[in-house]
Amino acid sequence: MSVDRVHAARAVADELGIDVVVLTPGADLRYLCGYDAHAMERLTALVVPRRGEPLLVVPRLEAPMVGASPAGALGLELLAWDETDDAFAVLAAAVTARLGAAPTRVAVGSRTWAEHALGVQQALPGSVLELASPVIDRLRMVKTPAEVEELAAAGAAIDRVHARMGEWLRPGRTEAEVGADVAAAILAEGHVAVDFTIIASGPNGASPHHELSDRVVEAGDLVVVDIGGETASGYRSDCTRTYIVGGMAARGLKEWFAVLERAQAAAVAAVRPGVTCAQVDAVARGVITKAGYGEHFVHRTGHGIGLDTHEAPYVVAGNDLPLEPGMAFSVEPGIYLEGRYGARIEDIVVCTDDGVRVLNNRPRGLVELGA
Amino acid sequence: MSVDRVHAARAVADELGIDVVVLTPGADLRYLCGYDAHAMERLTALVVPRRGEPLLVVPRLEAPMVGASPAGALGLELLAWDETDDAFAVLAAAVTARLGAAPTRVAVGSRTWAEHALGVQQALPGSVLELASPVIDRLRMVKTPAEVEELAAAGAAIDRVHARMGEWLRPGRTEAEVGADVAAAILAEGHVAVDFTIIASGPNGASPHHELSDRVVEAGDLVVVDIGGETASGYRSDCTRTYIVGGMAARGLKEWFAVLERAQAAAVAAVRPGVTCAQVDAVARGVITKAGYGEHFVHRTGHGIGLDTHEAPYVVAGNDLPLEPGMAFSVEPGIYLEGRYGARIEDIVVCTDDGVRVLNNRPRGLVELGA
Repeated sequence: MSVDRVHAARAVADELGIDVVVLTPGADLRYLCGYDAHAMERLTALVVPRRGEPLLVVPRLEAPMVGASPAGALGLELLAWDETDDAFAVLAAAVTARLGAAPTRVAVGSRTWAEHALGVQQALPGSVLELASPVIDRLRMVKTPAEVEELAAAGAAIDRVHARMGEWLRPGRTEAEVGADVAAAILAEGHVAVDFTIIASGPNGASPHHELSDRVVEAGDLVVVDIGGETASGYRSDCTRTYIVGGMAARGLKEWFAVLERAQAAAVAAVRPGVTCAQVDAVARGVITKAGYGEHFVHRTGHGIGLDTHEAPYVVAGNDLPLEPGMAFSVEPGIYLEGRYGARIEDIVVCTDDGVRVLNNRPRGLVELGA
Repeated sequence: MSVDRVHAARAVADELGIDVVVLTPGADLRYLCGYDAHAMERLTALVVPRRGEPLLVVPRLEAPMVGASPAGALGLELLAWDETDDAFAVLAAAVTARLGAAPTRVAVGSRTWAEHALGVQQALPGSVLELASPVIDRLRMVKTPAEVEELAAAGAAIDRVHARMGEWLRPGRTEAEVGADVAAAILAEGHVAVDFTIIASGPNGASPHHELSDRVVEAGDLVVVDIGGETASGYRSDCTRTYIVGGMAARGLKEWFAVLERAQAAAVAAVRPGVTCAQVDAVARGVITKAGYGEHFVHRTGHGIGLDTHEAPYVVAGNDLPLEPGMAFSVEPGIYLEGRYGARIEDIVVCTDDGVRVLNNRPRGLVELGA
């Protein structure tokens, strides 16, 4: 970690005419300065004026934690406020001093809490709030080789969990029971936290974001298993496979599932620099629509991934952002048949100099878990 | 769960002249309508106009999850938006139709993400953002008897973890090792998630929000153990005890610690309807200051607790809010001696009709864990 990312953010803010960027705990803060702070009501903020040195505003009782984090080595000025101080006034005075005048355009993190965003705005009369994402996404979207390796390690870890699915996913067990075992395995296989465990069996598979339920998995069920977690570095995994439990899939089902396999493979193969996010989405959607299931593919094709599970770039119609080497995102078409079942295949991929690198590598076909 | 809380919020908004309240996933949403949704970039919002029926704006792919939650029984209108819709425009049109005119005062949840708050504001030209906390806190701050019982159950669960501390907190083990065992016990003793495990040993105890480190606990160390989690109902636990490991405390140390015991007990005893939050803080601070340690009590005395670990009311100088029966909060003075050690005692308490009910009941003295 160096102060380079903070200075890069300052340069982009200056280029865009943004007077100051204010980022609170979360992935933006961790990305820029390595401080993985808890989100709470007390204001912690990395403050990056377009001119002058950036600073960290922190509650005094948490100042020792900055020093203990990678941010401690960056030499950022630390402005500690006491419990009865007005933290926003402290921040506003520092920014105004840096800029030599009160700022007009104040950009806050997209996930900054409203109480902090409005607190900053009100302490700077005449300022107008906007999102910092045009500054931050430009940096975070394009992963360095080291970040790609972190995502690859996360991908390999979640692949190991999928490889063991037969240990847990069996007829007679509830989704919740399976989910608890999968969660334990996500931790055992190299994550520090479980982000989500979707075990959507039978008709529940038709709800893309289904939560664990007490439904008992039956022989012959299709089960969508979409799981992910956070590794020690903060980078995330996210991978979906569809299983059939307690038997073999009928031929008709396999043919139906093959539509999804073709759609996912075609979208992955379309990834290369210059292709737009919307084009990747259109490739997956085109295959599914041609097979007659277009109306059953009810979500975008994918989302960026990094220190957040969902981040820019979004692989969705209307997003004309051209891919660049280093962009990492999911490719996860699905087909959902209300009341019957659903299926989804998801891999994390990275755009390379001349194509694509796929970070999840378990077989993508309908996985038959023995009777 | 009934729709009463939503209607109560509408009545308070109308009374305060707020045109519409917009709440996104988190404790506010769960409190009002029982929908425990994941925070994500896709807009999910409970929308409460001051006139007309409230509605839930949700991504279409998550609409089935609302029905599966307690919110499904409330009969709220569900407005589902598709992946390529502008969710903010959908929300704005619905609000404007309800009110018969575009709203001016738009209140958002204090923890609503900036991207959602600004998205709503920009879809309603001429509107001005403010926080919904004056509406929501008034409701959430005062717990019903059923909520108090949920907090009591959470308190009893975390007390059971403290009761077992001697199993894990021993000389020769790292804070991180102890923390992992404590985290497992928090889950085993009746929580669904671990919120925090502060195991701050020796000099680390002087940092109130110390994170787990690889420091090895030594015989004779003071160790501040501040732990909490989330129960199935969403209500939280939060309790601190200070331990001395591998031996007995010297008499001087016990006398020093007795200052903290007196301060905490006096502040708890001061709790009753009509006493202000600031007064409770002043009682704890007065005892510690009189003993000469005022400058080492570097934080407020407490925070409200409920579906969030930290919520209103805050027990801090300057907060002249009078306590009411049903208000639940922590009383947690501490003394921190930089470079040496620290100590804190924390209980969750509830203001009753004529005094106080304490929800954590392990002994509050310096706990000696045998050599």
